[in-house]
Amino acid sequence: MKTIHVELGDRAYPIVIGEHAMHDTAHLKRAIQGSTVLIVTNDMVGPLYAQQLVETLKAIGKTVHVHMLPTGEQYKNLETLNTIFDVLLQQQCDRRTTLIALGGGVVGDMAGFAAAAYMRGVPFIQVPTTLLSQVDSSVGGKTGINHPLGKNMIGAFYQPQLVLTDLNVFATLPQRELSAGMAEVIKHGAIYDAAYFEWLEANTPKLMRKDSESLVHAIVRSCEIKSEVVAQDEREGGLRAILNFGHTFGHAIEAGMGYGEWLHGEAVGAGMILAADLSQRLGMLTANEVERIRRVVQAAGLPVEPPQLGIDNMINMMKLDKKSDAGYIKFVLLDGIGRAVIRDVPEDVLRATLHVCA
Amino acid sequence: MKTIHVELGDRAYPIVIGEHAMHDTAHLKRAIQGSTVLIVTNDMVGPLYAQQLVETLKAIGKTVHVHMLPTGEQYKNLETLNTIFDVLLQQQCDRRTTLIALGGGVVGDMAGFAAAAYMRGVPFIQVPTTLLSQVDSSVGGKTGINHPLGKNMIGAFYQPQLVLTDLNVFATLPQRELSAGMAEVIKHGAIYDAAYFEWLEANTPKLMRKDSESLVHAIVRSCEIKSEVVAQDEREGGLRAILNFGHTFGHAIEAGMGYGEWLHGEAVGAGMILAADLSQRLGMLTANEVERIRRVVQAAGLPVEPPQLGIDNMINMMKLDKKSDAGYIKFVLLDGIGRAVIRDVPEDVLRATLHVCA
Repeated sequence: MKTIHVELGDRAYPIVIGEHAMHDTAHLKRAIQGSTVLIVTNDMVGPLYAQQLVETLKAIGKTVHVHMLPTGEQYKNLETLNTIFDVLLQQQCDRRTTLIALGGGVVGDMAGFAAAAYMRGVPFIQVPTTLLSQVDSSVGGKTGINHPLGKNMIGAFYQPQLVLTDLNVFATLPQRELSAGMAEVIKHGAIYDAAYFEWLEANTPKLMRKDSESLVHAIVRSCEIKSEVVAQDEREGGLRAILNFGHTFGHAIEAGMGYGEWLHGEAVGAGMILAADLSQRLGMLTANEVERIRRVVQAAGLPVEPPQLGIDNMINMMKLDKKSDAGYIKFVLLDGIGRAVIRDVPEDVLRATLHVCA
Repeated sequence: MKTIHVELGDRAYPIVIGEHAMHDTAHLKRAIQGSTVLIVTNDMVGPLYAQQLVETLKAIGKTVHVHMLPTGEQYKNLETLNTIFDVLLQQQCDRRTTLIALGGGVVGDMAGFAAAAYMRGVPFIQVPTTLLSQVDSSVGGKTGINHPLGKNMIGAFYQPQLVLTDLNVFATLPQRELSAGMAEVIKHGAIYDAAYFEWLEANTPKLMRKDSESLVHAIVRSCEIKSEVVAQDEREGGLRAILNFGHTFGHAIEAGMGYGEWLHGEAVGAGMILAADLSQRLGMLTANEVERIRRVVQAAGLPVEPPQLGIDNMINMMKLDKKSDAGYIKFVLLDGIGRAVIRDVPEDVLRATLHVCA
């Protein structure tokens, strides 16, 4: 087992990564104070893994309830969230009850927000079952739900007590989901660590074959990078925004296609290439660097061309994105691979980049 | 204008109390950074005061939206909360938008939770229009909504930037609401400050006649006491629980009668007398002290007898209350007037106190 410590003062927590982590009684025992646990999962992941986790928790003497959500981003809403509160109250769960999210980002976001809001905050543990949630939502404490008018518009910053990353879940992870997670992995290299980016250029084929050793390295290094960034800016006042590299375009693609058509990671993949193009137009990346980014995104099985949503349409959707501030659109760009910067971009340059969407 | 500083480190904020505080541009200007404000009020308070506040905000150059909620605790739920998110998104409010709660506790709790959750947190200001919200919810950062299975079960700890208490709202405050606020005022004296309790014994008649000078003294002293307690225990790990004096009984009365039948303050009034009786049975209050508490509760126009809900029924409801921990019922009791203590109470003594509910 490898352990990474996310340093957030009195909200610090460990990320434990390894084979059979779900059977690890020691870490769960240390992280859970009360006697009752509610596992929140979905009807795809639950049947595969809930029973293992229930058994581990029973072995350390916990009373365990399981609540299965319908699977899919379209259920990441207030109604589904409320079913978690219904179960917590029906089972008379008190404020010492621990919520465990067993699933990908959608389950983690909803269970995390439920934990933040139930009785104004109960303990929370993540057991992420996708590469995306292992490297992204497991660090940073962002939780929340969607609103018909925007993604992740309602939520909380809420840190877990523990993240338990079990490598065995890769056995059942669909290849498309693996690619989607790679988008964030590539992003971490691109914005923060040129040497890691080079390692990814060499090792993405191994990662796509689910090679264990390579996966551990990628998960560890990505979690370390995200932790370092978040530790410096927990509530997203400044630096943390660099984690949105590729996301302003990506969110517009997701919204424009209708949520669920493109996976988040797929939209971020195409979005990073648009952001790289924009960086090149502003003289911060060479053509060769843009091409290197394109190749690694492609090697990860992600789309390298955005959908034809129209330039004006894309711009309007980006203005709706929550990172817009008083009407301006800020972009996270690269000033060389491994170094992210934030810039207000002139609209004519933005339009030139978006001509591929026309 | 009087100002109290609630000391919570980087979440510290001022409470400003005075005549025409809603016309005070200086404090609002200092507290609001962005250009847009959403006033959340209800259809009883809004028609009386929203226009004044809108004009003050326009005078300092803000774009102002007003959202009116239906009036009443029965609307303090997820559906009504969601209407606030609808408006925020329809108006394309970004994360610099300030939410202002103009109303009593229900409006403050809902607007505060909306502010905590919208884009994971936007700035928030309280303009409390009832004595109860001025002395209670304006300090401590508790926000939230009810669930069909329990009150205030879903929410957040979230501190405002500013609380603006305008004394002119007493002109339209119904007498029954004034009494309800007095329950918390009396509580503050009873649990923390014997001299303040004595002052209340002498001055409750003046407070009930809405004497301005007396009201300012009561609001200031109550906010000071609550601030001191909360500053020592922001997230309710220990000391803060003493603020629940009378509330374990009170919540059971409210739940048993059906929410909205008895006002919260009325249930707390009768609840404090039950808690005083329990304290006497455990040898911590004299008969004379219990009688003094009963007299001041009565002078404030509050009920001194609980409803006949039945002993077992009361006990079951108290076990559901969120202050219950692993099945035990803790009570906040008085060890003399002005000194609160927390005790696990033997069930036979509790039943003796509850015989008046039989």
